[in-house]
Amino acid sequence: MADPIEDFYAVIPAGGIGSRLWPLSRADAPKFLHDLTGSGQTLLRDTWDRLEPLAGRDRIAVVTGRAHRAAVEKELPGIPDKNVFLESEPRDSTAAIGLAAAVLVKREPDVVIGSFAADHVIRVPHLFDWAVRQAVATAREGYIVTLGIQPSEPSVGFGYIKKGAGLVVDGAPEAALVESFVEKPDLDTARAYFADRSYLWNAGMFISRADVLLREIAENDPQLHAGLMELAEAWDDRDARGPVVDHVWPTLTKIAIDYSVAEPAAAKGLLAVIPGHFDWDDVGDFASLAKLNSGGRAENLAILGENARVLSDAATGIVVSQTKRVISLIGVRDIVVVDTEDALLVTTSEHAQRVKGVVDALKLSGRGEVL
Amino acid sequence: MADPIEDFYAVIPAGGIGSRLWPLSRADAPKFLHDLTGSGQTLLRDTWDRLEPLAGRDRIAVVTGRAHRAAVEKELPGIPDKNVFLESEPRDSTAAIGLAAAVLVKREPDVVIGSFAADHVIRVPHLFDWAVRQAVATAREGYIVTLGIQPSEPSVGFGYIKKGAGLVVDGAPEAALVESFVEKPDLDTARAYFADRSYLWNAGMFISRADVLLREIAENDPQLHAGLMELAEAWDDRDARGPVVDHVWPTLTKIAIDYSVAEPAAAKGLLAVIPGHFDWDDVGDFASLAKLNSGGRAENLAILGENARVLSDAATGIVVSQTKRVISLIGVRDIVVVDTEDALLVTTSEHAQRVKGVVDALKLSGRGEVL
Repeated sequence: MADPIEDFYAVIPAGGIGSRLWPLSRADAPKFLHDLTGSGQTLLRDTWDRLEPLAGRDRIAVVTGRAHRAAVEKELPGIPDKNVFLESEPRDSTAAIGLAAAVLVKREPDVVIGSFAADHVIRVPHLFDWAVRQAVATAREGYIVTLGIQPSEPSVGFGYIKKGAGLVVDGAPEAALVESFVEKPDLDTARAYFADRSYLWNAGMFISRADVLLREIAENDPQLHAGLMELAEAWDDRDARGPVVDHVWPTLTKIAIDYSVAEPAAAKGLLAVIPGHFDWDDVGDFASLAKLNSGGRAENLAILGENARVLSDAATGIVVSQTKRVISLIGVRDIVVVDTEDALLVTTSEHAQRVKGVVDALKLSGRGEVL
Repeated sequence: MADPIEDFYAVIPAGGIGSRLWPLSRADAPKFLHDLTGSGQTLLRDTWDRLEPLAGRDRIAVVTGRAHRAAVEKELPGIPDKNVFLESEPRDSTAAIGLAAAVLVKREPDVVIGSFAADHVIRVPHLFDWAVRQAVATAREGYIVTLGIQPSEPSVGFGYIKKGAGLVVDGAPEAALVESFVEKPDLDTARAYFADRSYLWNAGMFISRADVLLREIAENDPQLHAGLMELAEAWDDRDARGPVVDHVWPTLTKIAIDYSVAEPAAAKGLLAVIPGHFDWDDVGDFASLAKLNSGGRAENLAILGENARVLSDAATGIVVSQTKRVISLIGVRDIVVVDTEDALLVTTSEHAQRVKGVVDALKLSGRGEVL
């Protein structure tokens, strides 16, 4: 692979818990701190390893909750202090990425930043690398750039990006404008998209100049932008940062960057897309997790967990074992069993999306200690 | 109810583990030490309570393994020492019941004994009471008597007893000869049996004079009989018992009383049956347990366990909870979930019979510590 990109800074927002993966993912052990692929390391570390050849090891920032500071530093030993951005509470992705952008642009006015979720699974790293390099080249031209994943099947589980006219950008032969965003389709529509090939999965990865990103935030939410500026002003001053964070951070608008920046940018022809030809999954629920770990064979039983002791007789699906208990499965198909110290989940792939409902019910019923 | 029956002694063989109910039932917590009905007490205690009005509290013997002595005495506080028969190892039901018969007949030559499994569920006690009283009256005439359960449905899960000619016995208007034993039938045959009404479920309960029972054992297995006599001779001598048990018990033939006594007795017209009109279940597997605890409604989720914390969304079947963990079930039908400290079972009612196979596999794979 080539050298790191000189003007590039990677940002990893490590925020979401991943409620659909409860009871594996939970407040004190969010999805990004788990090994969901059997790689032997966490998704966060996988993400970092993917970005290091692109940005260099000293130019990868992580935005995370204060509670996860120790875990993040353990996963990423040697990460410079200046690259750890701690949120006092979750304020969604515009605040998280916007903060990093505002601080980094102050340190380095022409910096291009890319934001990459801490909890996605990506395979074939050299194809990811190539897509990001094209995206950075396109971002230098003033575009906000997203990576759109070339679908490997007609999925109804993801939103889509409709690719529009091609762009002429040096170093980015696949760059194109985004015509529009499309919500999760029904199966017939997904099949049509799949055949069409100009519809790409929206994977929520954005690359742009930091100043361009901030300009777009300012245009759509001047108050949020002002808050980010105030934070950035104080950030690198050890004494000033704390009080300003306490005062300003809780007032920031909670909004996903898709709505605050990407959709408005698409509407005015400022959003570009680079098709990604790598394998990608956001591991949104246990059905995805089962698929990811079954080697693509539905007749398999996937087993996750270092010390898993599973005895299976004609069972398919997935078992996640976090205890040392013996787990016996007999004659259950497409089953999802997640065995943790204080909570057990039993469902099927078909109902995997409904796990979030259980989490909500547990909150309401005052049993939040297992969340 | 009437007074206890003067010449009657009840014997409760409390031996089997109930492997098909693993991991709930296990070597150190066999089926009879569990509350499987939500009654608030163990099956053993339920059995004792059923027998007390028939035999009196000082005339109920329990034959159990040495390892269960403390648990049995805790469940049956005040049980006289003389009524606790400890096996040094399991030798099947002829040895267990034969030992009690041999010791009791020595104490009381004309005694009628009845043996009643420690781990069956019986409802409507006054109908049970009435059946046993008829059985004792019939036993006094020299018959070996079994209780045959009048089927409540065409079950394929039980063996059957074909009722033959009626007997004229004072105090036992329903007494009849047993024509034959029939193995578990297929569904069509079970339906025919159910319509016929002369086919009764074989519940393995036997009532007879102790001397008659021993005579039949002697006839079919003289060596086993001789061993029992040697044991009985020493039993009530505190010094002699130990060495004789150590020496003789391990040599006794392992054979179920059904084969050593009941079938031969039926063949020579010596086996009588009293139809039982009470609800009975041997709770042979988790499908039975689910049915027993669902109020008969297949759309229910039965929950067993004092501290069960179950959150269910469109789930049916049964959950047995022995931990304090939150258990969430989503969209699983006819499910069986058994959650214990060191083992978890997930299967369905349909596959409940296969649990024994798991137990065998665990033994073979050296994971017997969870059995």
